[in-house]
Amino acid sequence: MPGLLYIEKFGSSALTPDLVRRLEAATGKPAHHFLKRGIFFSHRELDRILTLVEQGKSFYLYTGRGPSSDAMHLGHLVPFLMTKWLQDVFDVPLVIQLTDDEKFLWKDLTLDQCHQMAYDNAKDIIAIGFDVNKTFIFSDLDYMAQCSEFYRNVLRVHKHVTYNQMRAIFGFDGSSNTGRIMFPPVQAVPAFSSSFPSIFGTREDVPCLIPCAIDQDPYFRMTRDVAPRLGLQKPSLLHSIFFPALQGAMSKMSASDPNSSIFLTDTQAQIKKKINKYAFSGGRDTVEEHRSLGADVEVDVSCMYLRFFEDDDQKYEETIDKYSRGELLTGEVKAHLIDVLQKLVLDHQERRKLVTDADRELFMTPRPLNFRPDALKSKQDKSTVNAS
Amino acid sequence: MPGLLYIEKFGSSALTPDLVRRLEAATGKPAHHFLKRGIFFSHRELDRILTLVEQGKSFYLYTGRGPSSDAMHLGHLVPFLMTKWLQDVFDVPLVIQLTDDEKFLWKDLTLDQCHQMAYDNAKDIIAIGFDVNKTFIFSDLDYMAQCSEFYRNVLRVHKHVTYNQMRAIFGFDGSSNTGRIMFPPVQAVPAFSSSFPSIFGTREDVPCLIPCAIDQDPYFRMTRDVAPRLGLQKPSLLHSIFFPALQGAMSKMSASDPNSSIFLTDTQAQIKKKINKYAFSGGRDTVEEHRSLGADVEVDVSCMYLRFFEDDDQKYEETIDKYSRGELLTGEVKAHLIDVLQKLVLDHQERRKLVTDADRELFMTPRPLNFRPDALKSKQDKSTVNAS
Repeated sequence: MPGLLYIEKFGSSALTPDLVRRLEAATGKPAHHFLKRGIFFSHRELDRILTLVEQGKSFYLYTGRGPSSDAMHLGHLVPFLMTKWLQDVFDVPLVIQLTDDEKFLWKDLTLDQCHQMAYDNAKDIIAIGFDVNKTFIFSDLDYMAQCSEFYRNVLRVHKHVTYNQMRAIFGFDGSSNTGRIMFPPVQAVPAFSSSFPSIFGTREDVPCLIPCAIDQDPYFRMTRDVAPRLGLQKPSLLHSIFFPALQGAMSKMSASDPNSSIFLTDTQAQIKKKINKYAFSGGRDTVEEHRSLGADVEVDVSCMYLRFFEDDDQKYEETIDKYSRGELLTGEVKAHLIDVLQKLVLDHQERRKLVTDADRELFMTPRPLNFRPDALKSKQDKSTVNAS
Repeated sequence: MPGLLYIEKFGSSALTPDLVRRLEAATGKPAHHFLKRGIFFSHRELDRILTLVEQGKSFYLYTGRGPSSDAMHLGHLVPFLMTKWLQDVFDVPLVIQLTDDEKFLWKDLTLDQCHQMAYDNAKDIIAIGFDVNKTFIFSDLDYMAQCSEFYRNVLRVHKHVTYNQMRAIFGFDGSSNTGRIMFPPVQAVPAFSSSFPSIFGTREDVPCLIPCAIDQDPYFRMTRDVAPRLGLQKPSLLHSIFFPALQGAMSKMSASDPNSSIFLTDTQAQIKKKINKYAFSGGRDTVEEHRSLGADVEVDVSCMYLRFFEDDDQKYEETIDKYSRGELLTGEVKAHLIDVLQKLVLDHQERRKLVTDADRELFMTPRPLNFRPDALKSKQDKSTVNAS
């Protein structure tokens, strides 16, 4: 569903330039290009989080991933890159849920396979560069047996949702296995700070911001419905668009088709070959036509990928501009993209190699994190000074 | 639903005198009067357990309780007394589930209240006399965060039951909270030995026998349906009839009406008063009529209670016989019952006083129990000798 339709249908809010500017003012940092370029395009009560920040109060971030046996692809990276940026600029704790239980319920896999996939994926996530002092990564299968508050919150959510409500949100029917009814509260409860006593102690009121792809919104609509009935805070949300397949935005990326996306395990040569061979082009049929009409950058996958991953605004805009005017040919734009992605993937692979089992164990151990409810005070004081 | 109707409708099996005799032969012990008097009247594959015992193999027992803020009444005692006897004669491990999570989902109570009730009830259960070396008592809220196999088995069951199947078994509808769909697998999984690695190690194949009131059978019909699809053994069952209220078998015992039953906290005077005042009498209107027609012992609650709690067969039969012939008056039968119950409750209260917090902590700690798969070998050898 295109973004604006989603906003209309489910009542989230558009991420306006005004709100992005307010975020820049609150953090004192220029906005990430995901925010400026509409990759994160929708939100629920992000303004409430910004108000808290402006008041010198803190919050925490929550995002997650359904583990997969396959390497992560570029699309998987998007919410994590956004989340890392938010962690850096807001200096807040982050919890990352690996839903190995969900994968087991939906896929023809054993629990051990799903659990192992969560552990494999954790190294990729750590390689993105999260701060170990501010990040807790957990497998549901592990954490359920580590923290009694987790199951308690799952029960609290279940008590306040009816089958009819859940069906209206998630659309399953009577032939669905009951695990699919059991699971949604498991994804809901990391949005409540009381699920993490090792981080937040007995504080139930630490607000939560969830960066995620828009398809995860139903879980959090449910969470937001239930929260007030539990006397807890509604989480805020920041939604991204979907990441397009190489074959185009209407095509679906598929883990079983390695040519549908770029994976974080791809070699430099594979990246080059895939982009050159499969990235759907908005260029014209002949060079003459292209020079005169310019490319259709709206359907060109290389342009879409640059929108996600060329973080230099000037370079990005220049390429789009020249390509749309026919000054650049598809091959040249693809060369630009290949440069960007080869570097991104190589850097990731190098960081990934450095992630040890011991690193992972630390990230995945329930423990205190750097959580300073007053951490943002000084920033507020400063902004108060600026405002005066 | 009267017992035989239940057996017909749901396909359990009648506990026949032949099977009771076989149990006596297998254990070398006279059967408990609950078995001889039809208080436990129905089963599912009890014969399979007996075959194992005859082959010198072991099994384990599983029973449970939905914790309640009120003192346990005599009816609550019944499955536990049966279970204790089975533990004694078979010398097998026992797990006792306290479903504090279920109570939370069904009642207007907090999790802490339900959890505390489980702990209070645990002392009453311990006072029944279970062997600490062979008994593990657990609160679901605790155990979910103590043993990862517990949640894993819950997920396995959920994956193999559809909403339609669960609705057919438990009868809830779309307006039920989803916790009621989440919960049944939690009651199912203690029937699988893999849920207790501290007792059974990695053994997934230790058979389970569940003594319970017949109203709990739906949970275990579901468990038995699912077990083969998980490659696990179906649990066997032993079902009791319901314990009647003082006002008669058609009346419901209610925790909110202290006069509907005898509680394990009742004083000697309260027991006497309640039996004399409230126990529905099958005696006749006048002494003359009573002497000539005899009592209607089928509706007389004192007789029913003696059937449960007068463990001396001769005294029990004598009283019923004389009463039915009008030789005894209601007051005399009540006096007999008062004697029996005052002793039972007093003994329980004295044992209850001796149960310390440390005792409870030990019973409720996941730990190895005396589990000897070959414990019954000698018995089998003996019976082989006897048979030869």
